[in-house]
Amino acid sequence: MPQKPSTNYDKIVRTGPGTIAGRYMRSFWQPVARTEDILAGRAKPLRVMSEDFTLYRGESGVPQVLAPTCAHRGTLLSTGWVEGDALRCFYHGWKYGPDGRCIEAPAEREGFCKTVSIRSYPTCEYLGLIFTYLGEGEAPPFPRYRDLEADGIRETSSYRRDCNFFNNLENQCDPVHVAFAHRTSAFTEGGLIGVPQVSAEETDWGLALRAQRPGGGVRVTQFGMPSMIHIKSSPTGPDGNWSDMVAWRVPIDDLCHNSFNIHLHHLTGAAAERYRAPKAAAPSAHRPVAELGAAVRRGDIHIEELKDHPDIVSIQDDVAQLGQGIIADRENEYLGRSDVGIILLRKIWLRELDALAAGKPTKAWHWSTGLDATVGVPVNA
Amino acid sequence: MPQKPSTNYDKIVRTGPGTIAGRYMRSFWQPVARTEDILAGRAKPLRVMSEDFTLYRGESGVPQVLAPTCAHRGTLLSTGWVEGDALRCFYHGWKYGPDGRCIEAPAEREGFCKTVSIRSYPTCEYLGLIFTYLGEGEAPPFPRYRDLEADGIRETSSYRRDCNFFNNLENQCDPVHVAFAHRTSAFTEGGLIGVPQVSAEETDWGLALRAQRPGGGVRVTQFGMPSMIHIKSSPTGPDGNWSDMVAWRVPIDDLCHNSFNIHLHHLTGAAAERYRAPKAAAPSAHRPVAELGAAVRRGDIHIEELKDHPDIVSIQDDVAQLGQGIIADRENEYLGRSDVGIILLRKIWLRELDALAAGKPTKAWHWSTGLDATVGVPVNA
Amino acid sequence: MPQKPSTNYDKIVRTGPGTIAGRYMRSFWQPVARTEDILAGRAKPLRVMSEDFTLYRGESGVPQVLAPTCAHRGTLLSTGWVEGDALRCFYHGWKYGPDGRCIEAPAEREGFCKTVSIRSYPTCEYLGLIFTYLGEGEAPPFPRYRDLEADGIRETSSYRRDCNFFNNLENQCDPVHVAFAHRTSAFTEGGLIGVPQVSAEETDWGLALRAQRPGGGVRVTQFGMPSMIHIKSSPTGPDGNWSDMVAWRVPIDDLCHNSFNIHLHHLTGAAAERYRAPKAAAPSAHRPVAELGAAVRRGDIHIEELKDHPDIVSIQDDVAQLGQGIIADRENEYLGRSDVGIILLRKIWLRELDALAAGKPTKAWHWSTGLDATVGVPVNA
Repeated sequence: MPQKPSTNYDKIVRTGPGTIAGRYMRSFWQPVARTEDILAGRAKPLRVMSEDFTLYRGESGVPQVLAPTCAHRGTLLSTGWVEGDALRCFYHGWKYGPDGRCIEAPAEREGFCKTVSIRSYPTCEYLGLIFTYLGEGEAPPFPRYRDLEADGIRETSSYRRDCNFFNNLENQCDPVHVAFAHRTSAFTEGGLIGVPQVSAEETDWGLALRAQRPGGGVRVTQFGMPSMIHIKSSPTGPDGNWSDMVAWRVPIDDLCHNSFNIHLHHLTGAAAERYRAPKAAAPSAHRPVAELGAAVRRGDIHIEELKDHPDIVSIQDDVAQLGQGIIADRENEYLGRSDVGIILLRKIWLRELDALAAGKPTKAWHWSTGLDATVGVPVNA
Repeated sequence: MPQKPSTNYDKIVRTGPGTIAGRYMRSFWQPVARTEDILAGRAKPLRVMSEDFTLYRGESGVPQVLAPTCAHRGTLLSTGWVEGDALRCFYHGWKYGPDGRCIEAPAEREGFCKTVSIRSYPTCEYLGLIFTYLGEGEAPPFPRYRDLEADGIRETSSYRRDCNFFNNLENQCDPVHVAFAHRTSAFTEGGLIGVPQVSAEETDWGLALRAQRPGGGVRVTQFGMPSMIHIKSSPTGPDGNWSDMVAWRVPIDDLCHNSFNIHLHHLTGAAAERYRAPKAAAPSAHRPVAELGAAVRRGDIHIEELKDHPDIVSIQDDVAQLGQGIIADRENEYLGRSDVGIILLRKIWLRELDALAAGKPTKAWHWSTGLDATVGVPVNA
Repeated sequence: MPQKPSTNYDKIVRTGPGTIAGRYMRSFWQPVARTEDILAGRAKPLRVMSEDFTLYRGESGVPQVLAPTCAHRGTLLSTGWVEGDALRCFYHGWKYGPDGRCIEAPAEREGFCKTVSIRSYPTCEYLGLIFTYLGEGEAPPFPRYRDLEADGIRETSSYRRDCNFFNNLENQCDPVHVAFAHRTSAFTEGGLIGVPQVSAEETDWGLALRAQRPGGGVRVTQFGMPSMIHIKSSPTGPDGNWSDMVAWRVPIDDLCHNSFNIHLHHLTGAAAERYRAPKAAAPSAHRPVAELGAAVRRGDIHIEELKDHPDIVSIQDDVAQLGQGIIADRENEYLGRSDVGIILLRKIWLRELDALAAGKPTKAWHWSTGLDATVGVPVNA
């Protein structure tokens, strides 16, 4: 009998200030930018979970996150000047330290600035990403992922997808979609892989999704609460071996989200050189993923016509995730046995949100087993 | 004394699900695409009267209309694969027949798919257009227009106009606007035609609009309920004789509509060849109608500057119809004797809507007199 | 102690029909277009304070302002034809005189048109701008600015800024922002000028803002109620002497406004020739101000990278004014002694609005002292 869909879905997808899912997401360190997104001495506006912030990198190189606007007359602080590790407002020159305290208010009387401060947020740069703690109270210890610090080639990337972040999370807990949405892609080397049998169980880190292929191969994907994923990527190239991809999905607002991704290729020495060589080639002349996804959803292009696009997997996910609606209607679903991952994900999320709302302790997740808990499976296995 | 404007206008212009005008419009077969809009083996999303649908054409060539999304997780079905005359969902491969029954759910247990179905809609392809019945209950017999099946050159076309469909219907019941809005056009051969005296009467098909020109010529235009028009187009070219244009105006939503048009040129043999020859010329380099209409409404261009545009009549109608507002304010009108067609159109529409709302029979319209009931009049008559 | 911010700000920023600030602004003649914006024999739509109008210039050359749409069926009058000093509707040819009376309704019985009229607005063309009185009752006498009629080169210009007009008015009453927002500009010749001490007092015309620079120089700027500014512009070029700039900020709606500017250069004879010469050079290839302002606010460009843009001052003001929000949040400000101009401006505005709401007389402002009440100060003084 098909499972009854969640009737609490709206509680999960809203992460703005004052929402329960927003409080839960804010209780974790979240990546908000890539290292290369912000140069020393520069500032940028950020939008995370329907809230605005200022990101800047001091002249010393340390990134900082502050409130979005000056306490004085509400001007966007990111348009100002970085001076040392402080930030001066564009409008009247009020100057703030990394801790948010105002240290200069040039046209005011002496001592005035001491009465002024804005909110600042703990910030940490790690493995090519800038993380921030946007929650209440003391920040929890920053969680390191020691396996990802290993020797090899580490690539960071990000993309923006114009739908609610939970469409993406559920997509990750759904191994069956690979056989259809990605049937024409490097995931499957152009052939329809067998439809797997799916099982899911709760782990110390979140969920383990197990997909058993008809031929006997088993793929296990780890989902990390609240919004992470770890997958093994199929070997490619002459020195190909399995690489590891870890990603965080972070709401920009309820209608779109960013994904911040770290791809670790276990290649060193000559193999690393060989991997890097082709990357120096000419930049892509392909149309952007979001534009092509929209053309597919409008019916102007069929997905099969894009099979040679280097980002075909992203386009396929864009089509599937936005094709459900920016915020999906989950009241009219019809779930089956293959949706056990999605059902478990919602159950865990709702359990944690209810605990948080009731003032009870939430589960302390940790990446206990590291890279080894995730298992790839060759396409033809 | 000027007529009091309708105070029931809002009832007429809203055609979304659950509205009374929407129920009325859905009780008729409506065109939703041109034949060439959908290739065999392809699918497209449709939006008609604020509702979404999937249009696809089976590999056999037969067009089908289904619900917009998969019953499983709500993904847009039009992004999937046509297989024979069935449609497979892009996300997890659920497959639906033309009757909307699910015939495969690959990752589920056997028999599961039999518990699943989505709505399908009767569909009919006729004279280069695809018609669908979107209403409740059994579809009425499909109405043929036998005169339009005659030998000759039949051209189908369509356009989208970004205002409520009723702005367009009222424009059709208003012969006076030709003398002004179209004063510079092929309709009038560049000269101000005389302002006609207008009368209107109800017919078996809808309304007959009679415009008597000062010089004695009489033009009669037939309006077909609920939203059709038949006009005679002035002779053009060496073999010119009167051609017949029939059009359906179909809401996309309350803020825009499509027009699907059939133009029948009564030309055969050598005359048909001569008509077709110039059409092989280079494609138009002219800016699109909607873009130029917007420029005229902004005041950047005066309509007279566009008098050589091949679609000048469409631009003029775009300017007049959108210039009244996307949904016009009819409470502040000031109608006169020349508005009898509009007044009668609203009266008939409201009578039918009231009957439908009260559960009483509505009038059974039929195209009794065919092409002959419509009369053109040469410009200088 | 910092001043408590205004809690009545919403009353000030809303100028649509029926608002108290709208009534106040409409009690003054307001510029709505530049002379060159409308040719003889042409019409344009206008939007002023969230209301629509038709602007046209009769064949005699006199500009007129009428209601936006025809009384008949609500079509945009600006798409019609100017005939003499009258305007004929595009849709059915109803013709209106400059006083708004309908003088022809071609398809109606004789005498019908005498029962029809639309609203017309007193209009006056002066110093290269078209002014209109949009308020209730009799228009007040048109206020001339005789000093601006002097010999010299008079340039008129306008710009649209996509924020509430009051962001701009407050910016004008704030001499401190010049030292920061405009630190890299012709205002300051690229150097940080000293931060001034500010004082403000009410005058016959509005407010006098006095900024005393550290080196002893004093700059006095005059603000004219309800929304004018007069500033002295620094000398530039070989014959450079102080020029005078007077501007009116006029809401388009609550989210954007126009500025209409008159720049009077006191140059005649050979000096005027020399001033005009370089203006004949090639047109600017620079990106538009609004586009660059948006790029700075997004963090894609830092303002310092644009220091050679000829409109750098406008870009800086765009960044500062829109960076506070389209309609700024004034409840969370933190004002200091340097904000006395802003505080006084709000106090006067609220006093006048309260008087108007209570049916009491408002203050009769007049430009008593002309150009001499405004004082420039060389950068290095």
